[in-house]
Amino acid sequence: MPPTRIILDTDPGADDALAILLMLASPEITLEALTTVHGNVSIDKTTRNALAILEFLKADIPVARGCSRPLIKSPHNWGDAVHGASGLGQAKLPEPKTKPVELHAVDYLIQRFLAEPKELTLFAVGPLTNVALAIRKEPCFAEAVKELVIMGGAVRSGGNVTALAEFNIHEDPHAAHVVFNSGIPITLIPLDATYKCLLTPADIEWLLKINSPVPRFIRDVMADYMAFYSQYEGFAGCALHDPLTVAALVAPELLHVEKHYVDVDISGGVSIGKTYADFMKVMKKPANVKVALDVRGREFVELFIERMEGLSVEAG
Amino acid sequence: MPPTRIILDTDPGADDALAILLMLASPEITLEALTTVHGNVSIDKTTRNALAILEFLKADIPVARGCSRPLIKSPHNWGDAVHGASGLGQAKLPEPKTKPVELHAVDYLIQRFLAEPKELTLFAVGPLTNVALAIRKEPCFAEAVKELVIMGGAVRSGGNVTALAEFNIHEDPHAAHVVFNSGIPITLIPLDATYKCLLTPADIEWLLKINSPVPRFIRDVMADYMAFYSQYEGFAGCALHDPLTVAALVAPELLHVEKHYVDVDISGGVSIGKTYADFMKVMKKPANVKVALDVRGREFVELFIERMEGLSVEAG
Amino acid sequence: MPPTRIILDTDPGADDALAILLMLASPEITLEALTTVHGNVSIDKTTRNALAILEFLKADIPVARGCSRPLIKSPHNWGDAVHGASGLGQAKLPEPKTKPVELHAVDYLIQRFLAEPKELTLFAVGPLTNVALAIRKEPCFAEAVKELVIMGGAVRSGGNVTALAEFNIHEDPHAAHVVFNSGIPITLIPLDATYKCLLTPADIEWLLKINSPVPRFIRDVMADYMAFYSQYEGFAGCALHDPLTVAALVAPELLHVEKHYVDVDISGGVSIGKTYADFMKVMKKPANVKVALDVRGREFVELFIERMEGLSVEAG
Amino acid sequence: MPPTRIILDTDPGADDALAILLMLASPEITLEALTTVHGNVSIDKTTRNALAILEFLKADIPVARGCSRPLIKSPHNWGDAVHGASGLGQAKLPEPKTKPVELHAVDYLIQRFLAEPKELTLFAVGPLTNVALAIRKEPCFAEAVKELVIMGGAVRSGGNVTALAEFNIHEDPHAAHVVFNSGIPITLIPLDATYKCLLTPADIEWLLKINSPVPRFIRDVMADYMAFYSQYEGFAGCALHDPLTVAALVAPELLHVEKHYVDVDISGGVSIGKTYADFMKVMKKPANVKVALDVRGREFVELFIERMEGLSVEAG
Repeated sequence: MPPTRIILDTDPGADDALAILLMLASPEITLEALTTVHGNVSIDKTTRNALAILEFLKADIPVARGCSRPLIKSPHNWGDAVHGASGLGQAKLPEPKTKPVELHAVDYLIQRFLAEPKELTLFAVGPLTNVALAIRKEPCFAEAVKELVIMGGAVRSGGNVTALAEFNIHEDPHAAHVVFNSGIPITLIPLDATYKCLLTPADIEWLLKINSPVPRFIRDVMADYMAFYSQYEGFAGCALHDPLTVAALVAPELLHVEKHYVDVDISGGVSIGKTYADFMKVMKKPANVKVALDVRGREFVELFIERMEGLSVEAG
Repeated sequence: MPPTRIILDTDPGADDALAILLMLASPEITLEALTTVHGNVSIDKTTRNALAILEFLKADIPVARGCSRPLIKSPHNWGDAVHGASGLGQAKLPEPKTKPVELHAVDYLIQRFLAEPKELTLFAVGPLTNVALAIRKEPCFAEAVKELVIMGGAVRSGGNVTALAEFNIHEDPHAAHVVFNSGIPITLIPLDATYKCLLTPADIEWLLKINSPVPRFIRDVMADYMAFYSQYEGFAGCALHDPLTVAALVAPELLHVEKHYVDVDISGGVSIGKTYADFMKVMKKPANVKVALDVRGREFVELFIERMEGLSVEAG
Repeated sequence: MPPTRIILDTDPGADDALAILLMLASPEITLEALTTVHGNVSIDKTTRNALAILEFLKADIPVARGCSRPLIKSPHNWGDAVHGASGLGQAKLPEPKTKPVELHAVDYLIQRFLAEPKELTLFAVGPLTNVALAIRKEPCFAEAVKELVIMGGAVRSGGNVTALAEFNIHEDPHAAHVVFNSGIPITLIPLDATYKCLLTPADIEWLLKINSPVPRFIRDVMADYMAFYSQYEGFAGCALHDPLTVAALVAPELLHVEKHYVDVDISGGVSIGKTYADFMKVMKKPANVKVALDVRGREFVELFIERMEGLSVEAG
Repeated sequence: MPPTRIILDTDPGADDALAILLMLASPEITLEALTTVHGNVSIDKTTRNALAILEFLKADIPVARGCSRPLIKSPHNWGDAVHGASGLGQAKLPEPKTKPVELHAVDYLIQRFLAEPKELTLFAVGPLTNVALAIRKEPCFAEAVKELVIMGGAVRSGGNVTALAEFNIHEDPHAAHVVFNSGIPITLIPLDATYKCLLTPADIEWLLKINSPVPRFIRDVMADYMAFYSQYEGFAGCALHDPLTVAALVAPELLHVEKHYVDVDISGGVSIGKTYADFMKVMKKPANVKVALDVRGREFVELFIERMEGLSVEAG
């Protein structure tokens, strides 16, 4: 089977960086382009980081710069530092020499997917602003996407931004509502699964035995993130949120997936940004999302480590 | 240890009837009064049913009639027949000869709890309208309640009325919001636990081997409910929603309980009536509810059957 | 024509005090009881003030103490001082010797209106918590009320608490929603009319020419209120919000009244507490409220002054 | 003074057609382009109508086709026939021979306004979807717009779609919220003003005395609209909603305009799409909109008729 050709919409972001690493380390996937979006940090930083990570990995892949703020909500102020001031924790990558393509990410997505309908898979691991705008601007976009794998939402789990909502979805709930109701075949990887995939300090120590810039980058990029987890979530280690999307292609057997009607609350109350599944089918709407409600977490972490070893040896 | 003295606020209702049976069959409990509320059927019917069930069981316990509709929401139209037209399925109990007490349920609750502060435990297995009104009318009511055990909500589970909300809470979400924020120590028994306690047709057959009116009443009262489950939920048998509250006193070891901040969405959107727990403590509010997120369901059903056997033999 | 017998639900409050004065000074009205409610200040203060004002005016009228907080919303913190710390501005009335009746205001209202159905008119010039609770607790209450005159809402006008909502309605929007949909015949006096009835410093000077405690009380009770208006609303003088309700009985010709379907937004967004009229009948619901959208304001102020002169001479 | 150069975003639409006529008949204005949007009818029909009207008037002006549905809300089903099945009432214009430009309206707007920053004025007389998307896709768009004149909203007036909301704003409330908060200098022409500008059957009879296709087009295009008004609004004649925007440039002295903070409710309740002004400045936000709250309506209608006479003679 030929590798699955994918485009990644991303807001690097510490765990976004690991997702990019994992995609490049996975022979089942060809990563053909990145589109950037506001999210973990500003669009300037996520775009810079996307370019810098690709240069660091010597990956010659186009990057298109996307939206700087949510569709409807007020912009985030990024006062918090979960991903460090730069968005890449303590990692210090050189200023990138490459530039984004001329096209806006929204137009780039439209152009690429309409050029090869049903050929490309889209991964989205940040707020869904770019994807929603592509859907609204070009009515044929949705049917041209083969599949969309999203990191976002807290379905049975509690939220990590409000009691009910997860960051990526809460950051642009209106965009998520547009995307979930677009008709695109969606696989959703929510906190229900990602919080079971914990990369520990011991895992990072293990990788550092390989003398290569890759393990050191992993250590540095996750440093602030791990400190945050340690302080607020009460455990050492951190969840591989964005990388777990890759399991949907590479190791789907690790995921417990159910098909449900899934949508996002966009009304103005306490539940804004809540990603819900109609488990009991009371809404009588057709299932639109395959949602991963569980995962064999440690097995995924080991898969991740193994792939990072491969990448490290290659780069070492 | 002396039995726990309780007052039950109820809307019988098929599974309400079983809860009353279980309370009367449990030596750990003294059921001192019933207050009725709109819910599964109208206040006229729930009050008549409460009186009729107590007469059927020769239990001389006062009944106070309560609210006929939700605090704020429009009244339910009871077009559905989950609990049968009478609210007691196919059971035909004689018209009750007793009458409710003069006092309105709200005033009865206020009088009883203020007369013996911190002595009585309140069980509420219908919409929380009476309890909320007591809290609002008498500012000292909340602190006079020793504990409140509620059947209601769907926390991690999907709702059974909307994708997000369970019937009792959805029927009067504003009342639930008042109750959850009242300061009363609350144990919540949501669908997450109750849907794991399934009484099966075989269980009923087993009970019917005893020649007593009690098993026949159980069969008849659950007939429509089981037919509904069979048609819409896709399995034979039905959940012992209201009876499971009794486990909080009688067999707490069967329940997996966590303490969280719990509240109900009362804004106007799709999530109205959603009972949510702040699992990740992002709201930084103190825990106000012990919520049963899991149960050893079959063990509870067997406890229920055993107690019904005792009651049957006694009544046979 | 015999005088209209009324009961006043009130939260004195500076302009509430003037409404009580105007009622007592108006031969067209017999004020038979006061019920108190939280609102401009706490229930302790509004009850004390109600008793003190009646003693000051030598009016032997029963007072029933009511609800201390809104039905659903969080309680007000009364950090602002529109009505002064006591609720009566700079007026210093002696501590009242009389006590409220034993009955809670909700039960008092139920008892009085059910004792003489369709005989008594209810005026409500504070948050509608007591009235809503009476409606919900006693299903026959609504049809026993002859008429209900409410000060509240901003229909075409902007709100004075949020851009959309007026204080009395915003303070307990859920109660207002219950009341507007109760079937009671309602006359609503919103900001649209009351802001056109401005009592000026010159008006008060005029009254002070009479040597009587009444004009001095009016000056003192309105002192903080006028200072607030002067600072925030940018004009000297203050609106006779609550007194204007009396015009509905005493000088209806001064009011421009239209019949519309009127309700209050209770969803969770920016419009919570908005009192709206369906002017274009797009909801196709029957009109439930006579709403005063305009008033010959100066004529009402002159009527008010004239009545205060009468009261002053009597008390002087 | 040279004519004001404008671009019109429009959804013709009967009164949209009259707005185009009025713009072409007004020497104070140069209409440089049309962008089309869903609204009164589908994007296919509004685009066809825009082209057909321009051909009918021999106006060689580019048209860019825009969005087919609202940003977030579900699409309208256009079951109603206020504007007739075609959107142009009973007018039968030939199928247009011209085509829209290649660019999407959103990109066309971005290109035109960025090419000549602060030189062009935008008129928007349909749902604000195109304008909002331009703002979100191109962060520099807002500051390149000299002024934006919008027909939409019901500020003091009741709504014509819900009790609170006017059609254009209600059709895409999220877009309106984006536009009002974009920083573009806005003049808003709401129902408060437009319902005072009534074109009567007698006015149309008057115009028909000129033997020209223009009066006959006006009669035909308004036929269904007038029938609708006659049936539902209870008066003969119809409001010149969209044409009244032209007064902002051509006869501003006819409008009573106030500066206020204006926004749209996008929460999920009954007030969704409500356009509100913070008249009493309780939100303490700077004024962002000049809103026309009143108009000398008959004077505007006469101006409209006069301009139509000129256009008729020219075309006759």
